[in-house]
Amino acid sequence: MKVIRTIAELKEWVIETKQAGRTIGLVPTMGWLHEGHFSLLREAKKNCNQVVVSIFVNPLQFGQGEDYEEYPRDLTRDSRGAEKEGADVIFAPSVQEMYPRGFKTTVEVKGITEKLCGASRPGHFLGVCTVVTKLFNLVQPDKAFFGQKDAQQVAVIKTMVEDLNMPLSIEVVPIVREADGLALSSRNSYLSQEERKGALVLSKALRIGENLILQGERKTSIIKKNMEEVIKEERLAKIDYIAICIGKELEEAEELPPSGEALLALAVYMGKTRLIDNTVVCIDNGNKRLID
Amino acid sequence: MKVIRTIAELKEWVIETKQAGRTIGLVPTMGWLHEGHFSLLREAKKNCNQVVVSIFVNPLQFGQGEDYEEYPRDLTRDSRGAEKEGADVIFAPSVQEMYPRGFKTTVEVKGITEKLCGASRPGHFLGVCTVVTKLFNLVQPDKAFFGQKDAQQVAVIKTMVEDLNMPLSIEVVPIVREADGLALSSRNSYLSQEERKGALVLSKALRIGENLILQGERKTSIIKKNMEEVIKEERLAKIDYIAICIGKELEEAEELPPSGEALLALAVYMGKTRLIDNTVVCIDNGNKRLID
Repeated sequence: MKVIRTIAELKEWVIETKQAGRTIGLVPTMGWLHEGHFSLLREAKKNCNQVVVSIFVNPLQFGQGEDYEEYPRDLTRDSRGAEKEGADVIFAPSVQEMYPRGFKTTVEVKGITEKLCGASRPGHFLGVCTVVTKLFNLVQPDKAFFGQKDAQQVAVIKTMVEDLNMPLSIEVVPIVREADGLALSSRNSYLSQEERKGALVLSKALRIGENLILQGERKTSIIKKNMEEVIKEERLAKIDYIAICIGKELEEAEELPPSGEALLALAVYMGKTRLIDNTVVCIDNGNKRLID
Repeated sequence: MKVIRTIAELKEWVIETKQAGRTIGLVPTMGWLHEGHFSLLREAKKNCNQVVVSIFVNPLQFGQGEDYEEYPRDLTRDSRGAEKEGADVIFAPSVQEMYPRGFKTTVEVKGITEKLCGASRPGHFLGVCTVVTKLFNLVQPDKAFFGQKDAQQVAVIKTMVEDLNMPLSIEVVPIVREADGLALSSRNSYLSQEERKGALVLSKALRIGENLILQGERKTSIIKKNMEEVIKEERLAKIDYIAICIGKELEEAEELPPSGEALLALAVYMGKTRLIDNTVVCIDNGNKRLID
């Protein structure tokens, strides 16, 4: 496995790989790799000849007062993990390499970036779209792999790729969870033992919402109220948002449609750590089950 | 020569062309092709195996009250011209094809887009950057060819390509002028006979500025004053801006540096028609000439 730190070296590798007729899979990450990332990597490995894992804690997607400085970084640890899982290249550029002096171009998706995480993290998705565009242009992957864990990010990037006609496909890989239900996240490393226990309310709330829909509940206010209640029972948890969305525009409605999919998404602070989680529910499964 | 109207058909052509190992040159235009465009096309032909001329009057780069509706369009005429000059493909998509319902992504370069043409055409360069990004992603050219006529556009696109690591090179082709000095532009077709005569003040003013610099003048206020005076002698002309800029950030300074290049750029209304023109002066040529 190659560890590439500069754009110049990456460009050479991309040209050689393309000339050899090999397909490229990209797994963009901020490092501190866990099973969630590895599941992306394995999916990429299955679908592409060569797999690039990018590791870059992107300052542009962090707001003031967020955890840019604290975000866990360990290239040695990540290299070991990525190599074991079969990555061909780690691309780990410096901030200076990605944003040299005078950098002034941004990519922005309107609308769907302003709600959910975008509402409490203004500028976050502008940072995500800009760095992802750069990575796509640098690596020129045939497929890029993203985790369903960041459901809004997936929706935003799919929109960006479609709108700007970017020549690649976006592959979405399911959330990986701990045995007790906690969704894997590099930010879980911030949690105290007590916070770690309390963090189970996220997946618990999602299961409650899911079950209500499967039982036929269609009023989102009622579903959200029930989810809210279970989170409020946890003393260390503070809700940022609970949202129930429809379609690729992530529209929030008073009432769910009779069929289709609903995204249940939430962000909750456990102490200072902001965690997110989500699940996609096939709405008419519930009705079918009642008929069965 | 192929005339392609849909993205689906273009994608097929691009895949075939790439698989055959052929290089692609792109000449992005808004149509109503003239010698200026043809000089781009010939340059592309010299440097690339296959040349795509895109023809798309991009609504996103026109402001309210601008000439989007009136902009001259004639695909039959343009196809004939492009074929004669050796184009391999004309890509002429509809607005619906380029901006389907729900389109919401933009590419923006800050700073250099806010001055000169950007000051009187807010949003113009956001529209340019967005459509050019789409065209680059669709055509995947090795080289794209732009006219020096739109000097600020060239600076903006070079910055965008560099910042976003787009995998192509930008080639700039000199301004083509009529025998009497008027820079070619599709918008010249709007001019009445009298306006056409008056429009000579643009190139005349540039020559005056150029000569002052070559004679050793370094104060931009004096140079601009002299340029302004010649334009004001023309009754039909109304100055939008006269600017003297340094470097790729298009910085305006009180005093020119002793060496390097200066961009003299202006926009002038002739009646309702807004015309632009520019010239690049090698500053120390004048000094050299005095020493010779």
